[in-house]
Amino acid sequence: MLKQIDYQGSLEEVANKFQGRKAEVSEEVNKSVQEIVNAIRKEGDSALFSYAKKFDGYNADKNNLLVTRKEREEGLEKIDENYFRILRRTKSQIEEFHKHQLGNSWSIYKENGVIMGQIARPLERVALYVPGGTAAYPSTVIMNAVPALLAGVKEIIMITPVKSDGQVNANILAAAEVCGIETIYKVGGAQAVAAVAYGTDSIPKVDKIVGPGNIFVATAKKICYGMVDIDMIAGPSEVLVIADEKANPKYIAADLMAQAEHDKLASAILVTTSESLVQKVDEELEKQVQSLERREIIESSVSNYGGAIVVKSIDEAFEVSNQLAPEHLEVLTSAPLAQLPKIKNAGSIFLGEYTPEPLGDYMSGSNHVLPTGGTAKFYSGLGVYNFVKYSTYSYYPKEILADFQEDVVTFAKSEGLSAHANSISVRFDDEKKEK
Amino acid sequence: MLKQIDYQGSLEEVANKFQGRKAEVSEEVNKSVQEIVNAIRKEGDSALFSYAKKFDGYNADKNNLLVTRKEREEGLEKIDENYFRILRRTKSQIEEFHKHQLGNSWSIYKENGVIMGQIARPLERVALYVPGGTAAYPSTVIMNAVPALLAGVKEIIMITPVKSDGQVNANILAAAEVCGIETIYKVGGAQAVAAVAYGTDSIPKVDKIVGPGNIFVATAKKICYGMVDIDMIAGPSEVLVIADEKANPKYIAADLMAQAEHDKLASAILVTTSESLVQKVDEELEKQVQSLERREIIESSVSNYGGAIVVKSIDEAFEVSNQLAPEHLEVLTSAPLAQLPKIKNAGSIFLGEYTPEPLGDYMSGSNHVLPTGGTAKFYSGLGVYNFVKYSTYSYYPKEILADFQEDVVTFAKSEGLSAHANSISVRFDDEKKEK
Repeated sequence: MLKQIDYQGSLEEVANKFQGRKAEVSEEVNKSVQEIVNAIRKEGDSALFSYAKKFDGYNADKNNLLVTRKEREEGLEKIDENYFRILRRTKSQIEEFHKHQLGNSWSIYKENGVIMGQIARPLERVALYVPGGTAAYPSTVIMNAVPALLAGVKEIIMITPVKSDGQVNANILAAAEVCGIETIYKVGGAQAVAAVAYGTDSIPKVDKIVGPGNIFVATAKKICYGMVDIDMIAGPSEVLVIADEKANPKYIAADLMAQAEHDKLASAILVTTSESLVQKVDEELEKQVQSLERREIIESSVSNYGGAIVVKSIDEAFEVSNQLAPEHLEVLTSAPLAQLPKIKNAGSIFLGEYTPEPLGDYMSGSNHVLPTGGTAKFYSGLGVYNFVKYSTYSYYPKEILADFQEDVVTFAKSEGLSAHANSISVRFDDEKKEK
Repeated sequence: MLKQIDYQGSLEEVANKFQGRKAEVSEEVNKSVQEIVNAIRKEGDSALFSYAKKFDGYNADKNNLLVTRKEREEGLEKIDENYFRILRRTKSQIEEFHKHQLGNSWSIYKENGVIMGQIARPLERVALYVPGGTAAYPSTVIMNAVPALLAGVKEIIMITPVKSDGQVNANILAAAEVCGIETIYKVGGAQAVAAVAYGTDSIPKVDKIVGPGNIFVATAKKICYGMVDIDMIAGPSEVLVIADEKANPKYIAADLMAQAEHDKLASAILVTTSESLVQKVDEELEKQVQSLERREIIESSVSNYGGAIVVKSIDEAFEVSNQLAPEHLEVLTSAPLAQLPKIKNAGSIFLGEYTPEPLGDYMSGSNHVLPTGGTAKFYSGLGVYNFVKYSTYSYYPKEILADFQEDVVTFAKSEGLSAHANSISVRFDDEKKEK
């Protein structure tokens, strides 16, 4: 089922397909989301409750919006101790990696008396969106919460849609518990995004919204961007595997399918120096897919968005990969660590045959919220740095300002800003008079 | 002209005014910008040229789109050596500050054999938007270019609108020259933003668009966000001055007006423990404004968006400031450096009476591209970090993956992802068979 993609040095077609999987937001969706956002801004809670009823069938009101302590406890009773242990182990793995992203405050004390620097401070309040139904992943709760916690965010609130029964998935409650998140609002969709962006009587305004969601959630995040910060507009997931002739086809097939099972728009591409490997991987795909639950999804995404590209050298493989800028990159070559300098664009990199990408989805330590669709050219995966903002500062002694006076005044006047010039020169008025 | 704002512990009204100065993008603007973006995507150059003609009166074609070497040289001849020296001194000041923002690559070598880390890489190609006419500030060119250069961005292109004569402001050419920017396209507006976001035959696609612009430029940036990265959606400029009773009213008045002269939506607010200081500042305002060129703008913005808030203590002044999250914060108190821990939200902080905010607009070293309208709660000013993206990586030895095998398989299955589980377990199939 793995098509071989003819690669003649030009990747335009593959790249367009790879990067074009993002669903184009229709004018209709845009318009209806804009209406929802406007309604929440104007009417607050009443609009929020009526959308919850309309879209999710939940009779929301200000008394049943929050998950109660009792509901949490009842949910957590359903979770066995082993599952809790796995969640805690995951959290600790993620922490171990992410703690190295801390610490971007610094200061300079110049000998001339100037002091300058940058202070990193956590955002105060962050909303974590968790989709309902089968798209509710406890691993994603941990991936989003840990960097925020490490950054020092004081308040993390969760928003998640519920159906008419008002129930939140117990695994999600368990992940929230492990991350110390106790404030969970039973609202979802574009209306929940607008509610945390603007604040309502029942829901506090936040500084940033993170977490995945459907096209309505993503569109609402984009519309509210600027009013609050957002993480990124995520598209369908993808993996690119670079393999030499010694790589194990069995592992490659398994890893391509792990990616493909996410959804029919997922993409899994093999780039290899070995044409015979492609054949072997294909055989393995046919064999292994038989026993996999999501066989239909896998077969669809591998046929439509999967493929194999045979290149002349490993260096060329990395050129291909850099052009596609994959979310996940597996390097199944000899001496995989030595290949790192060749990688320009990739969300997260998995080196060697015992670091399969799914390890990174859960417990390797790196974040699984990553840039997709070629946006790894300019975006990074989620990290502690996403929950911190900087203030720069400076302190100049009088004699150093004096040294800059003439130049700043000239520069400001050249830009037509005479009050800027005045602000500097007024500080030296007395001296002029004395002279 | 400085209104005293009655402050009873609640700042909602001030905050709304302060944060609500951002022009609401009308449906009309949104729609016409979306049309422009769509046209550029579909028709490329031909749409670009026809918009340049329509909106700017410039008969653009593929042969006159770039500023030629001759045009640059002719422009630069108009610039005197002193101005070049000031530009170079500014660049070197900005570099000195920003070089401390470098270096976020790291790696961990665990004793168990696991290797993990994060690689920082520069974006490859960045577009710097420079508005036409009086809003073209050479200082802003330097502020945008220096962090990109320090990050290691290989290609910085400039886009700027021209009128029918095809001339680019000579001061802008000089700033570009000092920053080593040689590729300057004579296109502006929403069409130029769309052109660099999607690429046309004449204009290359970039990874990120930075730089200020009018409402059409800002809307186009927001619409293209996701396809490329953007800096931020900037609003009108603002300053908040915290002053105790010993602060010099002359300097305060000058600094408030330096902010106010930017435009009628600019905001300048004094927060002080001293009611008599407010009176003195007001007198200074009346006096100094007489001789300032932009008197009308200053009077308008001070009356509409300026004000003084009298508080009971310096600590309360910082609480007010943290709520408003100003773009620029001046601290005119005794021991200003010791106040830094109190500051939670501010774009850039100016400490003591000889560090006036306009010094920071040009030559103090910190960046003048800063978050406005209260967004300093979650955004940072422009820095080297905005031109870098991270790739995380990990390498696990077989025996460590084995240690995680059972937990990852259980976790993946609990999320319904059996191909994820398979990707881990397939690596231990042989051992199972052996047993």
